[in-house]
Amino acid sequence: MKINQFSIAKTNPQQKRAELKTLRLLKGDEEDQLSPATLFETLLTRTHLAVDSPITSKEWLHDLLATPDQAFDDWLAAKPALTTAVFYRVALQLLDFEPEIDFQLDQPVTAWQDFNLAMVDTTSWTSSTVIDAFYLLLNTRGKNGQSWLDMLTAHGFLTWTYQLPADQKPVLFNGKPVACYDPHDFIREVVYVETDLDTDFDGHADLMKVEIMRPRESNLKKVPAVFTASPYNQGTNDEWGVKATHDVNRSLTHKDAGVVAPDEEHFPTHFAYHTVTGTAQRATETFSSTPAYTLNSYLAVRGYAVVYASGIGTKDSDGFQTCGSPEQTASMKAVVEWLHGDRRAFTDRHSGATINANWCNGNVAMTGRSYLGTLATAVATTGVPGLKAIISEAAISSWYDYYRENGLVRAAGGFQGEDADTLADETFSRTKRPADFQRVKGRYLQYVSQMAQAMDRQTGNYNDFWAARNYRPQIGNIKAAVMMVHGLNDNNVEPSNVKALADGLAKLPVTSKLILHQGQHIYINAFQSLDFSEMVNLWLANKLLGVDNHADDLLPDVLVQSNTTPETWHSYDQWTAGKETTYYLSGSHLTTSPNPRTDVQSFNDHQSAGDYTAWCQSPAKWQAALYKDDGKFSRHFISAPVISDQLLRGTPHLTVQVASSADHGLLSAELIDRGSDKRLTTSPVIMNRGGLPLGYHWQADDLREFRLQKTATDYKVISHGHINLQNRHDARHVDDLFAGQLVTVNFDLQPIFHQLVAGHQLELIIYATDYGFTLRGNEDISYRLPVQNAHLTIPGVSQL
Amino acid sequence: MKINQFSIAKTNPQQKRAELKTLRLLKGDEEDQLSPATLFETLLTRTHLAVDSPITSKEWLHDLLATPDQAFDDWLAAKPALTTAVFYRVALQLLDFEPEIDFQLDQPVTAWQDFNLAMVDTTSWTSSTVIDAFYLLLNTRGKNGQSWLDMLTAHGFLTWTYQLPADQKPVLFNGKPVACYDPHDFIREVVYVETDLDTDFDGHADLMKVEIMRPRESNLKKVPAVFTASPYNQGTNDEWGVKATHDVNRSLTHKDAGVVAPDEEHFPTHFAYHTVTGTAQRATETFSSTPAYTLNSYLAVRGYAVVYASGIGTKDSDGFQTCGSPEQTASMKAVVEWLHGDRRAFTDRHSGATINANWCNGNVAMTGRSYLGTLATAVATTGVPGLKAIISEAAISSWYDYYRENGLVRAAGGFQGEDADTLADETFSRTKRPADFQRVKGRYLQYVSQMAQAMDRQTGNYNDFWAARNYRPQIGNIKAAVMMVHGLNDNNVEPSNVKALADGLAKLPVTSKLILHQGQHIYINAFQSLDFSEMVNLWLANKLLGVDNHADDLLPDVLVQSNTTPETWHSYDQWTAGKETTYYLSGSHLTTSPNPRTDVQSFNDHQSAGDYTAWCQSPAKWQAALYKDDGKFSRHFISAPVISDQLLRGTPHLTVQVASSADHGLLSAELIDRGSDKRLTTSPVIMNRGGLPLGYHWQADDLREFRLQKTATDYKVISHGHINLQNRHDARHVDDLFAGQLVTVNFDLQPIFHQLVAGHQLELIIYATDYGFTLRGNEDISYRLPVQNAHLTIPGVSQL
Repeated sequence: MKINQFSIAKTNPQQKRAELKTLRLLKGDEEDQLSPATLFETLLTRTHLAVDSPITSKEWLHDLLATPDQAFDDWLAAKPALTTAVFYRVALQLLDFEPEIDFQLDQPVTAWQDFNLAMVDTTSWTSSTVIDAFYLLLNTRGKNGQSWLDMLTAHGFLTWTYQLPADQKPVLFNGKPVACYDPHDFIREVVYVETDLDTDFDGHADLMKVEIMRPRESNLKKVPAVFTASPYNQGTNDEWGVKATHDVNRSLTHKDAGVVAPDEEHFPTHFAYHTVTGTAQRATETFSSTPAYTLNSYLAVRGYAVVYASGIGTKDSDGFQTCGSPEQTASMKAVVEWLHGDRRAFTDRHSGATINANWCNGNVAMTGRSYLGTLATAVATTGVPGLKAIISEAAISSWYDYYRENGLVRAAGGFQGEDADTLADETFSRTKRPADFQRVKGRYLQYVSQMAQAMDRQTGNYNDFWAARNYRPQIGNIKAAVMMVHGLNDNNVEPSNVKALADGLAKLPVTSKLILHQGQHIYINAFQSLDFSEMVNLWLANKLLGVDNHADDLLPDVLVQSNTTPETWHSYDQWTAGKETTYYLSGSHLTTSPNPRTDVQSFNDHQSAGDYTAWCQSPAKWQAALYKDDGKFSRHFISAPVISDQLLRGTPHLTVQVASSADHGLLSAELIDRGSDKRLTTSPVIMNRGGLPLGYHWQADDLREFRLQKTATDYKVISHGHINLQNRHDARHVDDLFAGQLVTVNFDLQPIFHQLVAGHQLELIIYATDYGFTLRGNEDISYRLPVQNAHLTIPGVSQL
Repeated sequence: MKINQFSIAKTNPQQKRAELKTLRLLKGDEEDQLSPATLFETLLTRTHLAVDSPITSKEWLHDLLATPDQAFDDWLAAKPALTTAVFYRVALQLLDFEPEIDFQLDQPVTAWQDFNLAMVDTTSWTSSTVIDAFYLLLNTRGKNGQSWLDMLTAHGFLTWTYQLPADQKPVLFNGKPVACYDPHDFIREVVYVETDLDTDFDGHADLMKVEIMRPRESNLKKVPAVFTASPYNQGTNDEWGVKATHDVNRSLTHKDAGVVAPDEEHFPTHFAYHTVTGTAQRATETFSSTPAYTLNSYLAVRGYAVVYASGIGTKDSDGFQTCGSPEQTASMKAVVEWLHGDRRAFTDRHSGATINANWCNGNVAMTGRSYLGTLATAVATTGVPGLKAIISEAAISSWYDYYRENGLVRAAGGFQGEDADTLADETFSRTKRPADFQRVKGRYLQYVSQMAQAMDRQTGNYNDFWAARNYRPQIGNIKAAVMMVHGLNDNNVEPSNVKALADGLAKLPVTSKLILHQGQHIYINAFQSLDFSEMVNLWLANKLLGVDNHADDLLPDVLVQSNTTPETWHSYDQWTAGKETTYYLSGSHLTTSPNPRTDVQSFNDHQSAGDYTAWCQSPAKWQAALYKDDGKFSRHFISAPVISDQLLRGTPHLTVQVASSADHGLLSAELIDRGSDKRLTTSPVIMNRGGLPLGYHWQADDLREFRLQKTATDYKVISHGHINLQNRHDARHVDDLFAGQLVTVNFDLQPIFHQLVAGHQLELIIYATDYGFTLRGNEDISYRLPVQNAHLTIPGVSQL
């Protein structure tokens, strides 16, 4: 087991002592008065729930081992010298590590170091050492994914802080707010933010429901806000979404140049704002609960107001779902503006009473994954005042990269047939208010049918519809600090999205942090091995509360989870580094030296009816067949086994000549790590369902971690890419193609950060139809592939 | 979708009106003053969270459809007559059914009936009808597994009741307490019950930690207690358990008569009780949380104290784990005695201060599944005063039926190699207090090694060890009402356990209720289709609070989930009924007419090394191979397809002659429902994780339901049984056997309650080694099976 902590702030000795006193652990001049052992006992006892019942806390000490065969109280009675072994043996037990299972009782220091935990460096223990070590211990993560302080918090250690006056909050410890706000006393209120939009064509500015959960104390002392823009939060139309899914079992067709899809509908620019009749002092509408991101809930008890809005086209709001449009961005930006004091909201939809966010200090962070992180990114690109930070996880930075690729209709992994209109239908939760839905149904269906034209599933070309949903040209507007989190194996929102954002941010004078994990499309705030929640708490304390905790220096610029070793994370300065390396396609080989071969390889994209049906139903079966294919419907190029471990970084780029036997065609490529090995599990394994409390008598998350798979696998897909042969130069503009025409295509594969283990091989597979991602027409098309000059470039390769 | 509700009490008109007034829904003489439509609107508005904000609640009504194209407020403005269609159209929306998805707007009454929901029978709606219908609606379950009242509760509708004086609680509605106790104000306390045991041989009476969560109001008005005895609750030793698992890949051996395993250790009868120094008025130790059964949490906010104890041999308690022994039963009985005022407890382990359960009305129910339900059953067989009811789910009634069968070591499904000693090790959570564990480790290992001898894995015979863990002889002592819940497909704790208990109870003058579901080893309190939690709330209100709600009459004596149709439950009077039917083994047929065939069939139990290894790793693969086997290692007997649906009920009994080619051997049998069909999913499908709130800002469960599997399966195992050929007459006593000796065995298979669909066939498979359940020696043994007189009897068969 290995724990990776990045959130422990450097704190000077005086500050440590002051903070321990604030937490009522250290009192007066105990440091001078008590022996190291007694001071340790004193501090320990004060962490125990039964601190007021000496008999019970003595029993607790009687059940802790100080030496391999002596209880803590017995050891203490012998008036011993405190040693590193005793301190860390006890500490391991406090952190829920189990003797014999997790560590050997006679080797506590070795275990501590093996777990990668921080320790004080001393040979002789003074009372001062005890305080330093104890302070560090409170910040140290245990076996169950929490710092000891958070473990104690879950046991009720901090409930007395609920009673502190508002102006003494948040209580900070090690540069981070502690859970000093009573979740049972939260205020939950609803307001309706008025937008400058009329996306349901009703002549009135769209009102947007916003749900706020904030500490009672925020009435007396302003707090920062963490805002999650989630189009899903008011419910989804799953059945409708299924019906709206497009058929992908159809052929690609020849595209004629200059054919452009109709525009999407433009929304009215003239509409009436709502009449203001006065200002209310408090909200009049409340809510009981809303789907919550557990990271937000972790932050809520630490003094951040948590705000959710679903945006236009959702239950209790006006407007239509527009799937990533500038209007959707504007609707979410409006919430930030209201929180910052720059926009009005109403207490309800009719009274005309406005309400201010006078409980907010004007500093806002946006959080969330997938669509939620996408909207955080989109709002950040507006440069809206008040937005100080975003944590954008698995976020789309251009919707063309989500539903299209290089002139192809290309699905998000696992969602074949979904498109912008499908997602709009799925999230149009005004259906959950049946009468409201009846009133707008006709107009909405008209709008979304026009959207279906504008998104142009026929050609797959980039056009104005997609340009409006590409946030990258506006990256330069970003003023918020940005923390990006993305799965290197995310084939829903693929890594090209975060790479483009990270590359754009690198040129700006804003803080950006990038975390790349080995998961797919997941959250990472409940991992055993990584202190992500604490990192966020540290970082937001800096960004939203102005705490001088050097968060930007402490947190790595680029943090990457190892794909070979569980529970291992490495820090880097940037994504791409190392030697640019070109791999040449040669026979069935991938070689790093140019090879003037002139052979022409070929494959045919047509499959038997049985295979076709089976693979459409289960793209995983197609993937297995593709790997084993011997040149029938794909061509494989395999490198020599690498001599030592290699790190492959950045965006691979493929250049090949190809001819289709038809007047249309596509080319796909997969990059494979080939070699039998036990790899990490595809998804994190849930170790303890509901076993990660976020506070005291508050919500909980499921503790999880990637494990090594129990059996070896032969290979792993590490990247892929797809291109329409008629979009050789540009996704927007069409090139001509006739049957048999040899054309050169060059295109990016998904960016990688991958350790290729010694003995493994790099394999490139070139093929056409991708059953998991592209249209599947099962046409009888042959492709010819002259290998001369065909090559793959990886921008950063280094030996390890 | 179909909803099955059994918990709706019959309430007279006056009572309905009084209860609606208690809930502040109906006021004064509104029934006389208001028109039906206005009364409906008035009642509706009062259920809404924004009842104090007329503008907001008007908006809500504006979003409900009264007719297919008219909002409720618009419809109301037209001063219409209320109709059945309008009432139930609105009602469907209130219950979260969605127009077009779940029901057609123009067919609300049809939908209501299709959902199997109760409705008032009227053609003309008066104000009185509105009240009756509204009252019923509050008790009606919606789409998401909750009654409307519980849905409203989760939205905060009942929070005002938190402030009611203790003596006005619990607030009853329809014979059941509502959630009128504030979970954020619960008292959580720990006491140490003193037992009359010294199971850790330390000379002192074992103290046992008990965790109590109870309403603050219980300080002023006594409440009943729901107690769950869970040896798992203080943690488990999973790694240790894995190590302690026995090797099952070994041969059965010949048993000599008269060889008896050594006795288990006897515990000291002389030991010291703890000195009493005084009586405390309140507990001094608290706890933050403990693993909770969500049914208990549902009950907690409805006014039941919830009590957990892990018993002897667990963290913070004394004693050793004894796996189902009378001592473990006594330790759990001690908790009931303390709750009933018949035993002492201490505030802590050392002060000598006793503490009474003076907040408890002395009425206790025990709940829990598996080991937990087992202990509830065991305690009930002591007849302990105060125990008024138990809900024993998937409970063991004799541990021999859990780890042994007819002279064989036979595992619980999925737990090959586990035995009493393994389970003791796994649950001996005193390891979680390392110093405490160090002090008792040696003695415990000695004890458990003796247990390993006494349980006798060598012969598999019934002996005194197992007799001590057989609760069936004491069933006659039961005074508590018993609700049994068991999965017909539970092959962990097999249905023979519940059948024996139910049969025993049938002879007693106590209430017993039996619920048989189509799941395996699961809880059923979060199903969409069944109101189990409400049934329990109704039943316990009767048993523990003395509410005269006719619960015993309302709840079916035997409730069985259909194995053919999802969301369908049928009521019966008893498990076994119908015509006793004998099936004869004839060639490869199973016939209901005797057939004087004299052929001798045979099979050989030895497998290739490859199959053996694969099947040991995956018994599911063995099962698939067994079904397809053509007489190599099994013999199959198949009935003709049944003409019409048949219901098969009770315990099948098999009688055959058999000879083993060795001086030892076993016989196994499986009963199969043969026929290609879409069957129910093996496990319930989670429809909404965390989507079932148990109160307001309280815990939540995952809503789930069995679905039809997406693809048809060829067959389903519905029963099985196993016997050692040397235990032909008795599990305790050994019969001799020599190679080739033809012997007659007759034994029970697991009890069934199964609908065999028309066209399906009943199939009996006879074989020897059962890779999922028995030892797997892979010996080269041939079995001979003369079919003359071989027969299977099913005690109840009826045509449907």
